[in-house]
Amino acid sequence: MSGAMLFPSRRLRATPYTSRVTALGVSGFTVYNHMLLPTTFEGLREDYSHLKKYVQIWDVAVERQVQIEGPDAHKLACMISARDLSKAQIGRSYYAPVCDQNGKMINDPVALRLANDKYWFSIADSDLLLWVQGISLGLDLDVDICEPDVSPLAIQGPMSEDLLVDVFGEDIRNIKFFHFKAFPFKGRMLNIARAGYSKQGGFEIYLDDSNLGGDLWDAIWGKGEKYNIRPGCPNLIERIESGLLSYGNDMNREDTPLEIGLEKFINLDGDSNFIGKQALIDQLNVGIEKRLMGIEMDGVEMTPVAMPEAVMVDGQKVGTLTSAVYSPDYVGNIGFTMISAEHAHDGAKVIVESAQGFRNGVICEVGTLLKRVKANEALYS
Amino acid sequence: MSGAMLFPSRRLRATPYTSRVTALGVSGFTVYNHMLLPTTFEGLREDYSHLKKYVQIWDVAVERQVQIEGPDAHKLACMISARDLSKAQIGRSYYAPVCDQNGKMINDPVALRLANDKYWFSIADSDLLLWVQGISLGLDLDVDICEPDVSPLAIQGPMSEDLLVDVFGEDIRNIKFFHFKAFPFKGRMLNIARAGYSKQGGFEIYLDDSNLGGDLWDAIWGKGEKYNIRPGCPNLIERIESGLLSYGNDMNREDTPLEIGLEKFINLDGDSNFIGKQALIDQLNVGIEKRLMGIEMDGVEMTPVAMPEAVMVDGQKVGTLTSAVYSPDYVGNIGFTMISAEHAHDGAKVIVESAQGFRNGVICEVGTLLKRVKANEALYS
Repeated sequence: MSGAMLFPSRRLRATPYTSRVTALGVSGFTVYNHMLLPTTFEGLREDYSHLKKYVQIWDVAVERQVQIEGPDAHKLACMISARDLSKAQIGRSYYAPVCDQNGKMINDPVALRLANDKYWFSIADSDLLLWVQGISLGLDLDVDICEPDVSPLAIQGPMSEDLLVDVFGEDIRNIKFFHFKAFPFKGRMLNIARAGYSKQGGFEIYLDDSNLGGDLWDAIWGKGEKYNIRPGCPNLIERIESGLLSYGNDMNREDTPLEIGLEKFINLDGDSNFIGKQALIDQLNVGIEKRLMGIEMDGVEMTPVAMPEAVMVDGQKVGTLTSAVYSPDYVGNIGFTMISAEHAHDGAKVIVESAQGFRNGVICEVGTLLKRVKANEALYS
Repeated sequence: MSGAMLFPSRRLRATPYTSRVTALGVSGFTVYNHMLLPTTFEGLREDYSHLKKYVQIWDVAVERQVQIEGPDAHKLACMISARDLSKAQIGRSYYAPVCDQNGKMINDPVALRLANDKYWFSIADSDLLLWVQGISLGLDLDVDICEPDVSPLAIQGPMSEDLLVDVFGEDIRNIKFFHFKAFPFKGRMLNIARAGYSKQGGFEIYLDDSNLGGDLWDAIWGKGEKYNIRPGCPNLIERIESGLLSYGNDMNREDTPLEIGLEKFINLDGDSNFIGKQALIDQLNVGIEKRLMGIEMDGVEMTPVAMPEAVMVDGQKVGTLTSAVYSPDYVGNIGFTMISAEHAHDGAKVIVESAQGFRNGVICEVGTLLKRVKANEALYS
């Protein structure tokens, strides 16, 4: 399906920034939460190189918010989040995997606590709203749940902070990682978080009025020239190097957070009684049978994975390649694989049945990919 | 965004038929239920003309099934469906709008009763599974809910019945509209329904083993030459002519079934106590403020609507164009609009602020579009 055209329809919702990304030459889209998400502008590799040096403005309005508000909001948030939110602080963000009753991943949102009785869950690609609303209805909880008119705009790259200081003032520098603060813009107060789907540094601006999309974009773009600003988007090469997982690609309803390596975000010992907790405790007792790992592969430069590709040992399928691409800074093909626990260790040798034929692969910890990228960058800089 | 490329990723799931549609030259895709759905092969108009004369094979695996099974399955099905399913018969399909507690549309699936304690909801583009599972969990119902390995393949067009008789035997002719029967294929029994997302006649085959996707496609394709079979897909021109609505385009979480004209599928007087019923009764008492209507527009030939386009009267916005396209057999631009009740009547004159500029529009009943198409077809045949 590489090279297919995306047929236009209102069902694939435009964002408040779509007119800007189109005018600036977006060359590829994907669909995420029933909405358009840019995937490339100049090209995957050109966008990647630029992101690592300068600053980019990203239309990530697809990060829709599930707003939970009301007397039972905190209770419901704690119930759906495998991350312990019992002491969640106002003004902070929390990566909060959401599981079904079997411990399987429904979504991996970021939870923002806006007030004692108000949360946003900034979601990955599944209709978490329906899950939350269904549970709330079944339990007859006292909350209002909606998808508010909130359209995040991300500023990513090493020059992000300087650029946003020029737009919003020095106080931008005081936002800590995964914290957010409100800044004035055109008569509104916009929450700005130090966060984003890259490891190049940056911010996410939670615009809460679609009508101001063009104004916000232009205000930032207008100050960006001296930082060599370009339009960008979550970049496949950079995210794999950085070990950033993607719901739908690297995890889905088949997987538990324990299999994906998200243990550190989940407190199975605590008092919180989130949905799926018992299933996860049971799994831990029985033993984890598969794990998400990093992988390095030889052969010709890899293009993005569109179909499941098998990972083999001794002619037996032992796993699936979930994401992969050629990385210039790693100087090799890298990706992630969900692989049986037996082979889920550093240095395990596998064969990958890729779209371009068989390749030799070596398994590694997810974090190892970035360490080698950093070492290479140091070597060649 | 017209002409944008769709960037490949495993998150946009391939179907058991993707290899076949790709080999046969699919020229456009959309994304539906996190899965690839072809939108064009030779072209929107060429596909349309062929569909009306011959027979096409459609990859509609995106019609995912939400399977509800167990002692409380019937109870849960009746609870989520605004259509009265209390007397639903095994072997029959029911168009069954699903509403939230406010009567707003969550999905408009077709419900199939497979057994006393087993339903499939064949869904439109939203994660209905999460809604059903959330409710079930909140109410602690005794059901199993899953997305089974079921990938519908549609055969559409006037030659469909003859073709499927050649493949599955004469008993195909005995399937009534919106009924289904099981037929043997490669050791499995496949449910085949007389149904489909066109008004050209046809069937949907509920393949329940992905591994047989290629075999099923090839078995039908192999018998299709004498009927001039081609690959196809739901066709935008044909569906608008036929008054077939699309969830996400012509209705969404902003709309109730009463506003969309689905009254005939909903029994507000009956005993069933489905979710959203009271809200719909209240709306009926207060009065419906907007309605989905047909619309005919002048001006240059319209391309598919990608962004919301305003429908105006006396300089005031009174509605939104939800779908539109030029129809050769209507000999004009036609579409649907969600418009304020005041203007929701046959012959109302409006101005449409379309992507290509202002146009004159005339409102009509949804069913009127097809009547004129039929009259034109009779005239020119």
